[in-house]
Amino acid sequence: MPDIKILTEAELRELVPLDLDAVECVEQGFTTLAGGKVVMPPIMTLLVPDHNGEVCVKSAYVPGIDSFAMKMSPGFFDNPKLGLPSTSGLMVLFSSTTGVLEALLLDNGYLTDVRTAAAGAVSARHLARQDASRVCVLGAGVQARLQLKALMLVRGITSAVIWARDVARAEVTAAQLRDELGIDVTASADAADAVGSADIVVTTTPSSTPLVQSDWVQPGQLVIAMGSDQEHKVELDPACLGRADIYVPDSQLQCAVKGELRSAIEAGIVSADQVFAELGDITAGKASGRQSDSDLIIADLTGTGVQDTAIATLARQRAGAVGLGATFTS
Amino acid sequence: MPDIKILTEAELRELVPLDLDAVECVEQGFTTLAGGKVVMPPIMTLLVPDHNGEVCVKSAYVPGIDSFAMKMSPGFFDNPKLGLPSTSGLMVLFSSTTGVLEALLLDNGYLTDVRTAAAGAVSARHLARQDASRVCVLGAGVQARLQLKALMLVRGITSAVIWARDVARAEVTAAQLRDELGIDVTASADAADAVGSADIVVTTTPSSTPLVQSDWVQPGQLVIAMGSDQEHKVELDPACLGRADIYVPDSQLQCAVKGELRSAIEAGIVSADQVFAELGDITAGKASGRQSDSDLIIADLTGTGVQDTAIATLARQRAGAVGLGATFTS
Repeated sequence: MPDIKILTEAELRELVPLDLDAVECVEQGFTTLAGGKVVMPPIMTLLVPDHNGEVCVKSAYVPGIDSFAMKMSPGFFDNPKLGLPSTSGLMVLFSSTTGVLEALLLDNGYLTDVRTAAAGAVSARHLARQDASRVCVLGAGVQARLQLKALMLVRGITSAVIWARDVARAEVTAAQLRDELGIDVTASADAADAVGSADIVVTTTPSSTPLVQSDWVQPGQLVIAMGSDQEHKVELDPACLGRADIYVPDSQLQCAVKGELRSAIEAGIVSADQVFAELGDITAGKASGRQSDSDLIIADLTGTGVQDTAIATLARQRAGAVGLGATFTS
Repeated sequence: MPDIKILTEAELRELVPLDLDAVECVEQGFTTLAGGKVVMPPIMTLLVPDHNGEVCVKSAYVPGIDSFAMKMSPGFFDNPKLGLPSTSGLMVLFSSTTGVLEALLLDNGYLTDVRTAAAGAVSARHLARQDASRVCVLGAGVQARLQLKALMLVRGITSAVIWARDVARAEVTAAQLRDELGIDVTASADAADAVGSADIVVTTTPSSTPLVQSDWVQPGQLVIAMGSDQEHKVELDPACLGRADIYVPDSQLQCAVKGELRSAIEAGIVSADQVFAELGDITAGKASGRQSDSDLIIADLTGTGVQDTAIATLARQRAGAVGLGATFTS
């Protein structure tokens, strides 16, 4: 069998920083998804109830990309008590032509972090007002930080407000981001106020009850809801979707099961058979994004296997180009 | 993060031969499955239509086993034209407690071969007549060879007949098995005759049309149908299930979709709501196996994630005990 490339998290961090290239890579993935020839099976979920854990498997075959990724993302939510991160995992890359194992990307979830943040930037690039400068982030974890960083790649962001249930944590994150990004980042204890005064709102929490009420969101805003990626999660009051001028799922099929769309359908706000243009339709130019500066737009990001295949292939290509990583034969 | 153990196919072949230990290990997995606390999600399948390929992902969390496997099995059926095997793949082992990556078993499908053959032996141990000595194998591939070898671990097999569409291939396989196993193995061009004269019939083909007709099977036989593991496959005429005194699925949920049960339900031979004791119920002593020497029994083996978790954990434990394999940190 051919050589297998093995890349560590440190190598992958070096090879694939969160930059415009990563955003382009993920955008290209979405565009291909709109071509209709991508094969993306439903997400597989293994529950490990005895240890408050779950593992999701995502994958997509993208015609025109030489490889496809299968990504395993464990989330074991008691890990912090053991001094371990809740999430970890890896991506496995196979040849699209032969199915032969090509690379093991031992990223502990890093590439997922990058491709998830990059999808936020893709959404903002196509759906935020051109002059959007003020961001509100709900949540204070890894994605809170990365989403803000990603937005700065595509819009002239000058300030951000961080809200989290734990205000002290929001303050720590805000201070870190202020230092790292050199913009005005503050913590807020008032979610309604934080949401209401932003041009772009990003929700990054694992909440299972709605955080954002429908009278908080404003004309002209882009709301990027990326926290809900499981059947029990929800960040927006379903009525928010009723108020939106445009609703954009990353994958309508997935969002109807795991995204904000699920609760909006359950609440009768959206009809189950309504068809929405997806993010890829917009990046492909098959559907229009923002029509006016007063449009309220909601992007519903559940995370797609296409993003994984795109970013994993980028990582492998770059590793090959610069000769990084170990090789292994089996 | 903790060290990751990486094992090659050669190391895994050394660590986990097809022997009684492997059979015990897989039997234990089935027994646990009957305990009702195993979590085994539906199989994920990624189709790669442009290259006549597919990848299946199987997994199971088994309480009491410290790790769980996620197995990726690519099957790319044009590979032989390129001089590559059709099937390959790997198993990834995670901690059941933390979800942390523990081991990469780069087996190219070897452990699947072993756990699949072992399930045949488990079936024969509980469902074949004690005096079963004559085997008929339909198919002449890897599983044809391994199933016969596995049966010899649990019954006093003295002769076998190999039938395959390609008679020349059956003859080659028969000659190899004669040499390797030291019993009387011949090829037959007459499937009806080969089936009719055996105590144990094993079907190991990827057929999508029934091979075994219902008037070929006989009282007292055990028929192990292990070829069908996808929605389009079938090896037994559905009427065979109507003739069987006992029908035993490895997982009824899977067999109803991917096994012989699927076509029997479609043909109206079996009712969709009929409940069968599974192989694990029988190994666990919760249901009875063979009642009389004249029972015609059909075992329907689609392959379960429990087998993967069981065999992968055995491999990792043995690797640890003898210090085989590379370690890697990421």
